[in-house]
Amino acid sequence: MQTTKNERSERYAVSFQDVVAASQRIATVIHKTPVFTCESLDRLIGTRIFMKCENFQKTGAFKYRGASNAVMRMTPDQRIAGVVTHSSGNHAGAIAAASQRVGCTAHIVMPSNSTEVKKAAVRSYGGAITECLPTLADREKVSVEIQQATGATMIPPFNHPDIIAGQGTCALEFMKQVPYLDVMVSPIGGGGLMSGTCVAVDGVQPKLPIWGVEPTGAADAHESKLKGEWVPQTNPETICDGLRTSLGDLTWPFIRDRVDEILLADDKQTTRMMQFIWERSKLIIEPSCAVVLAALKEKIGSMDSPPAHVGVIIGGGNVDLTNLPWN
Amino acid sequence: MQTTKNERSERYAVSFQDVVAASQRIATVIHKTPVFTCESLDRLIGTRIFMKCENFQKTGAFKYRGASNAVMRMTPDQRIAGVVTHSSGNHAGAIAAASQRVGCTAHIVMPSNSTEVKKAAVRSYGGAITECLPTLADREKVSVEIQQATGATMIPPFNHPDIIAGQGTCALEFMKQVPYLDVMVSPIGGGGLMSGTCVAVDGVQPKLPIWGVEPTGAADAHESKLKGEWVPQTNPETICDGLRTSLGDLTWPFIRDRVDEILLADDKQTTRMMQFIWERSKLIIEPSCAVVLAALKEKIGSMDSPPAHVGVIIGGGNVDLTNLPWN
Repeated sequence: MQTTKNERSERYAVSFQDVVAASQRIATVIHKTPVFTCESLDRLIGTRIFMKCENFQKTGAFKYRGASNAVMRMTPDQRIAGVVTHSSGNHAGAIAAASQRVGCTAHIVMPSNSTEVKKAAVRSYGGAITECLPTLADREKVSVEIQQATGATMIPPFNHPDIIAGQGTCALEFMKQVPYLDVMVSPIGGGGLMSGTCVAVDGVQPKLPIWGVEPTGAADAHESKLKGEWVPQTNPETICDGLRTSLGDLTWPFIRDRVDEILLADDKQTTRMMQFIWERSKLIIEPSCAVVLAALKEKIGSMDSPPAHVGVIIGGGNVDLTNLPWN
Repeated sequence: MQTTKNERSERYAVSFQDVVAASQRIATVIHKTPVFTCESLDRLIGTRIFMKCENFQKTGAFKYRGASNAVMRMTPDQRIAGVVTHSSGNHAGAIAAASQRVGCTAHIVMPSNSTEVKKAAVRSYGGAITECLPTLADREKVSVEIQQATGATMIPPFNHPDIIAGQGTCALEFMKQVPYLDVMVSPIGGGGLMSGTCVAVDGVQPKLPIWGVEPTGAADAHESKLKGEWVPQTNPETICDGLRTSLGDLTWPFIRDRVDEILLADDKQTTRMMQFIWERSKLIIEPSCAVVLAALKEKIGSMDSPPAHVGVIIGGGNVDLTNLPWN
């Protein structure tokens, strides 16, 4: 981001100072997740891969960072009124758990066709589930109704400064653990994790290249970058359930200006890589993480002098074990 | 083991000094595996559980410790002649990988009905597979033939001093990482890991209680302890494929004299616990590890004042992902 400090704060929703403040705010409530390496993965991909294991984060995903930051930024009065969000995935569990920790009611609007596993997870973190029709329109409608009835604060899954700043703490921590990375790689769904990553990298190692990864079946960020303008995602088709959403107006500028390249992998490559990691690393990772390693395998294989130390954010490990893609 | 040093060395195949020497010998070739905790597991079992994660050991199991120790104790001439063993499980991969590291041929005798996954693992570590009939008699016969033809050194899976000493390095490391354990818990198959654990605990924390765990379908150590004499395992029936074997004459004395109690769990409890750990901890663990946590859940639940800090050796994470017990 070749801008002065003032231009930056005008153009972007989140500053490096926001990420540092978030990091201090949530330090005692999150897990400082470990960084794993795996020799057979390195042999497969052709360089040294460092995996920042957010699958070991509380609630099983990096989403707990942003959710905690957002909830902890709320005033006592806001906490009494509660929070509301709509999500069928990791954000739902993260908001429920982060709210429970501060004694705040979390209203989670979930589509009626959400799996029992996902509902059980939200319930186990004390979330109050309201079911809706499985359409974005109905999710938003029901959320607004709850918000109006209760006065709860809406915390969306990615397009929110506190969420972006919270997710940025992951890359911040990662660069302290491995200070010699040559490239930072992260998946792109709605862009919350990637935007936070951009801000953190820009503050610590401004020259570090950043690569994003998307599944071929939901490549809206890739397309947006090609066109130079924001293209929304329609009809996503991928097993990477965390990466089906469109970018938001707060996240697109980071992807537009700071992400050097967007890599792609299809679901077949993702499934194969997911099984490889489970078998060799003994780490349970989601398809939305396996897609990153699958795309890296192609990319590194095509390079004459690949980066020696590749940092990969492994976003989560919440998988329905009774419905695995290779069975 | 209430014995003098001399009595001890007469009665037991391995001394604390052997374990310490093994630990120094293999220090640079093994992974120092991490210790994991999981809040939802603690809530489920009712006390604080520390998991020594040997599923992250090279080749995916603690067996690499004993195999490395045995191979590294061999003379240059012995290494040239190679090693031979019969195993369809984790010992096979461990011997192959440890041998490959020192440039020594590993002849692995595997039953013809071994899964392709297991054969592929042995091959990937450079092991030379010879197939045999799926009977213990034929496994031994073929192994002896190879031994006679090549002069290779036989390294059995557990009933061998170098193997026992190598496996003991796991508990030794564990007690350094968590010096305030109130009980040490480990599974019992052939008894190699448990014997090494007894020696290590006896040398570092002689008053620390040791609990063993077996599946109800292969409870030979439990029965042997009850009768006060070694009872071999016949017709084991359990999904815990690492725990089907009988104790050996070198391992039985440790279990007889130093293990305070043997807990049991059935396959249904084991399967349920395995799924819980995969879902909550994001760790891939084998049935032979899940059985330990399942038995602990029963045991801790029945105690008025359970131990506050329970150390559990998680032996391995090699699982056929296309054939999971809950599917």
